[in-house]
Amino acid sequence: MIEQLYSKSFASDNHAGAHPAVLEAVSSANTGDAPAYGDDRWTATLAEQIHAEFGDQATSLVVLNGTGANMVALSLMLERRYHAIICPETAHIATHETGASERVLGVKLVTVPTPAGKLVPADVTARLGGRGNISEVQPRVVSISEVTELGTCYTPDEIAALAETAHDNGMLLHMDGARIANAAAFLGCSLRALTTDAGVDVVSFGASKNGALVGEAVVVLRPELAEAGAYLRRQTLQLASKMRFVSVQLSALLTDELWRRNAVHANAMARRLADGVADLPGLGIQWPVESNAVFASLPTEAISELQARYLFHTWDAPRGIVRWMTAFDTSPDDVDIFVNDIHQTLKRLAG
Amino acid sequence: MIEQLYSKSFASDNHAGAHPAVLEAVSSANTGDAPAYGDDRWTATLAEQIHAEFGDQATSLVVLNGTGANMVALSLMLERRYHAIICPETAHIATHETGASERVLGVKLVTVPTPAGKLVPADVTARLGGRGNISEVQPRVVSISEVTELGTCYTPDEIAALAETAHDNGMLLHMDGARIANAAAFLGCSLRALTTDAGVDVVSFGASKNGALVGEAVVVLRPELAEAGAYLRRQTLQLASKMRFVSVQLSALLTDELWRRNAVHANAMARRLADGVADLPGLGIQWPVESNAVFASLPTEAISELQARYLFHTWDAPRGIVRWMTAFDTSPDDVDIFVNDIHQTLKRLAG
Amino acid sequence: MIEQLYSKSFASDNHAGAHPAVLEAVSSANTGDAPAYGDDRWTATLAEQIHAEFGDQATSLVVLNGTGANMVALSLMLERRYHAIICPETAHIATHETGASERVLGVKLVTVPTPAGKLVPADVTARLGGRGNISEVQPRVVSISEVTELGTCYTPDEIAALAETAHDNGMLLHMDGARIANAAAFLGCSLRALTTDAGVDVVSFGASKNGALVGEAVVVLRPELAEAGAYLRRQTLQLASKMRFVSVQLSALLTDELWRRNAVHANAMARRLADGVADLPGLGIQWPVESNAVFASLPTEAISELQARYLFHTWDAPRGIVRWMTAFDTSPDDVDIFVNDIHQTLKRLAG
Amino acid sequence: MIEQLYSKSFASDNHAGAHPAVLEAVSSANTGDAPAYGDDRWTATLAEQIHAEFGDQATSLVVLNGTGANMVALSLMLERRYHAIICPETAHIATHETGASERVLGVKLVTVPTPAGKLVPADVTARLGGRGNISEVQPRVVSISEVTELGTCYTPDEIAALAETAHDNGMLLHMDGARIANAAAFLGCSLRALTTDAGVDVVSFGASKNGALVGEAVVVLRPELAEAGAYLRRQTLQLASKMRFVSVQLSALLTDELWRRNAVHANAMARRLADGVADLPGLGIQWPVESNAVFASLPTEAISELQARYLFHTWDAPRGIVRWMTAFDTSPDDVDIFVNDIHQTLKRLAG
Repeated sequence: MIEQLYSKSFASDNHAGAHPAVLEAVSSANTGDAPAYGDDRWTATLAEQIHAEFGDQATSLVVLNGTGANMVALSLMLERRYHAIICPETAHIATHETGASERVLGVKLVTVPTPAGKLVPADVTARLGGRGNISEVQPRVVSISEVTELGTCYTPDEIAALAETAHDNGMLLHMDGARIANAAAFLGCSLRALTTDAGVDVVSFGASKNGALVGEAVVVLRPELAEAGAYLRRQTLQLASKMRFVSVQLSALLTDELWRRNAVHANAMARRLADGVADLPGLGIQWPVESNAVFASLPTEAISELQARYLFHTWDAPRGIVRWMTAFDTSPDDVDIFVNDIHQTLKRLAG
Repeated sequence: MIEQLYSKSFASDNHAGAHPAVLEAVSSANTGDAPAYGDDRWTATLAEQIHAEFGDQATSLVVLNGTGANMVALSLMLERRYHAIICPETAHIATHETGASERVLGVKLVTVPTPAGKLVPADVTARLGGRGNISEVQPRVVSISEVTELGTCYTPDEIAALAETAHDNGMLLHMDGARIANAAAFLGCSLRALTTDAGVDVVSFGASKNGALVGEAVVVLRPELAEAGAYLRRQTLQLASKMRFVSVQLSALLTDELWRRNAVHANAMARRLADGVADLPGLGIQWPVESNAVFASLPTEAISELQARYLFHTWDAPRGIVRWMTAFDTSPDDVDIFVNDIHQTLKRLAG
Repeated sequence: MIEQLYSKSFASDNHAGAHPAVLEAVSSANTGDAPAYGDDRWTATLAEQIHAEFGDQATSLVVLNGTGANMVALSLMLERRYHAIICPETAHIATHETGASERVLGVKLVTVPTPAGKLVPADVTARLGGRGNISEVQPRVVSISEVTELGTCYTPDEIAALAETAHDNGMLLHMDGARIANAAAFLGCSLRALTTDAGVDVVSFGASKNGALVGEAVVVLRPELAEAGAYLRRQTLQLASKMRFVSVQLSALLTDELWRRNAVHANAMARRLADGVADLPGLGIQWPVESNAVFASLPTEAISELQARYLFHTWDAPRGIVRWMTAFDTSPDDVDIFVNDIHQTLKRLAG
Repeated sequence: MIEQLYSKSFASDNHAGAHPAVLEAVSSANTGDAPAYGDDRWTATLAEQIHAEFGDQATSLVVLNGTGANMVALSLMLERRYHAIICPETAHIATHETGASERVLGVKLVTVPTPAGKLVPADVTARLGGRGNISEVQPRVVSISEVTELGTCYTPDEIAALAETAHDNGMLLHMDGARIANAAAFLGCSLRALTTDAGVDVVSFGASKNGALVGEAVVVLRPELAEAGAYLRRQTLQLASKMRFVSVQLSALLTDELWRRNAVHANAMARRLADGVADLPGLGIQWPVESNAVFASLPTEAISELQARYLFHTWDAPRGIVRWMTAFDTSPDDVDIFVNDIHQTLKRLAG
């Protein structure tokens, strides 16, 4: 454990605390009894907000964490034991969920190398050669992350093209939206434009990285998939007994587009950070900065020096790439101090 | 959804809200950045409290819900794919987790009929006949619930006898302690007396039913089992990113034995309820009232009438048995009003 | 390993060798090349025989062993991850497959105590109380064994009643027919009468215990379930590459009702054995002798003495029950020698 | 189904029938009773032959098919639920087992692109960056195929280097030896040189493709892994009841090195085929011909024409690559007729 953080963390948007409005919402829900397991009025309110945001056919399942959201979402979509998922090889489900897809769902991930974390329709069709071959798994779900794990965003048109390709081939489209708020903020569009209107079938709708304490939701946009949801959430260890305290957090973020304000700010801080270091010799920005993440390549010595003072992750050690993330509560000063230190460090090492 | 609760719910201790001290603790932890995934000072404090309560060899894994606690706990204990679990047929893992044991862990539960939800050593030894038979699963874990699902408690000696039987036969003892606080309160003993000192190997340590918002812990008392814990928690969908907000809740309950005060009160309310209806003709108390649950048999009509006014579950419809639960925030008035109504209802129906 | 068998084994019908006609059939299929994985003419012939025996809508999937047949059969029937199977607690899938149902399928078995290994419709309906409760698994399949593990048989009417109950409740009926031949022989009916005509949906059709070398089949009687079969057989490790050599064995047994002749003989030998010991003091026949198994209770000393000279299994050690099985190649002399020895042994010990 | 094969099949070595010596061996084992499940003298004899071939510490588990062998072998080696397997992306376990690894074992395969189906030590070490990261699976097994799926062979030194890398990093080495006989034949070495002496821990030892009817074996070379084998084989649906009939086939192949004679012949036929087409314009041999497979690129029209007359698989449709396999019973004439036809076809199309 790092006993004390010297500065704002740039390691992850989940190093941030909760947004004050979220905390207030939780307190406000503590009004004595309420039915458990979602049969409460806060969860009912959230359902209405989800309808307003994603459309009337949307069903929402409040869950406990991001991996849980993905596993519940995918379990709804995988009808057969031999169905498989096509996803980028950088997908969170493929890289950072300790094999939950394989272990908990028993599913094979057919992973696709991509230039910047984003699938294109041809990636999907190129993996359908084994259709009807009983020795091969049968792709049933295309899973994309919006924002991607590399900080890039799919446009609504790009998503729609993938949805069309999936549907044309008897498949479904899943979106890991752990940072969907940041995408909608970057693209200046609604959540609906990125999901329902683009043909997404099920969304893992993220809240933790946007200012919640604990909790996410699965939003099912294809009604026939929703029926099994309550059973699968329970079985997949994602049912909160006192659900109101999770629902009310999502509700707070959905009220007056708090989610967007948080995301716009976080994105702006990443932009400020990227701009601040853009011209530095020896430092290269990887992938377009389209959300609240900046991926940069630096000399190894600079990384070590900076990590002694700031929390951030090395993304790809052999290639010297680090990830810097901002959050709803990152301040311009936090960024400027960090940018300044990066400048000094690189200059000193170059010297 | 029942829009409005007419009265205190007797349906479950998770109908209650959060204890105010828990909410305050959550707020107090919202102090800006903290490392994610448990590398924070609140989780460190909790670890110390767990040491104080369960002994220095105890490792604690904060998790998200009760089924999750059980699955993480059991996954630590099941070494081989053909290992099995012996448990009462009333065990929560066997009846109310939508088959998570079989689906998520892939394990067979060898279930034992019991008179009041409690295993005895002979139940275990009677199920070891298939030892060494390659066509049979091999029991590796004995799982008991303290408090049981029928509201009864194991004494420390009873637990120790089960632990000894388990260990003598190369097995481990798991305790589903969703309501362990109520057991310690009823028995007037420490948590340690029921667990570490009795030879329990891993405990699912409950918090939600005792006044938390969301979250539980797995307490590993056999150090060699702990190593895999962090991986298995992540894979089993139980890792909170902003863990501090869960840890601090457990911390609040462990501070100055708030957990015990909550449990003592809830138990007293169940006692008051049981005593209030004890002599009623047509009503029979099932199983000893040793925690915050009262199981009673009533005429079907009385059940229907009362359920129109109060929230509580029918436990066994064919036998006319209902479950009434109290919580840390059930008041004597809540109980007295309910008792009075039960009296009136039964009298009217008898009339 | 018992180096040498002193006499005919009464331990299991799989101690017998292969019927000569089966061996000849295997040799006859070794005619150079044939497509692999079932695309051969022997498998096509078998498919026709299966149609003739079970009806035109029957699809057959050749598999490798009995547990494999059960797992493939059940995997076709379990649509949802939270579906469960109702079966007798003596079911082979519940007791002697090392937890394959739980581990390979991830399914909970809801086991029912029965007097003689046979379910009745009320056993099924009594286990539907949790329908719609998201905390409980949802029964989807009723699984019965014909012959049962206790050597008893369901009549066609009894099977039809279970099928009707299953279907009326949105469930399917599976039959573990490892010894279905012995049931048809005992009841003097066709295979079809026990399956298709009685409403069974999927059958594990046994061959090994009836004279085959290796191999069984899954017979799917509900066409909409068949589509996934080829994928699931492959994934469930039950696809034979040179399938002709398995198919041709089943074909041989289905030719001129060799299966029935083998079963009639084995049953007659069990009857002869049971009759031969029926009046012996100290020996009790358990359960009606309706196939090729005799379950008898004997004094422990007698069991030990006899097991020194004959191969047979102790079924229930605490209750002193043993199982004696006959096979297609058990001779009347084999039985008479054994019967005589049982007489002598019990007399000597009684003396 | 192709009703009739016009010629020798070049589709797969499992299109061939059984070697006559294998069939004779099966007949010779049909001598009345024998204990089931491997407690018979033929299985004991096989165990001795396996000792002679692989060394005294070798334990053999007879199984039913190749995927079954791989699943049993890997299940022995994967101690933890978060352990993973590193293998080439062309591995049979990754491509042609309908996701059995993920579904039956619940394990993630970390797949590596390779030039010719062969891993090198650096491929392994490059995938260990996530060691100790609880969000990532932890590689525990390296799995290689000998012969590879592309027909190439690892030398004993190459295998030893991989074993050393695996062991140095706390991992184990699995060999999918479905065609290990062909490798030993090509390399002119013993089975032991490729396995025990090279440091392999567990081998899937193939028999079907080498002339058996049905059946393979798992050979465990690290004794501490063997203990769980019998349970895992049963649970993984790979236990033959009348095991003698499978064991005796492997025994026949191991007697007087019949396996090697079969493999030497099959390899020679592939060599003859490759040599026969080597200089043809428009045809390119892919990957070195080191076993009984020839991979060739041809114009699409040529493929179509030839497939109308000969059975063989298109391996990579977009790149126009086909696979031609020979078997123990492929004759020089079979090859010459095929070669001649390929010549004529390409000439005609070029014309």
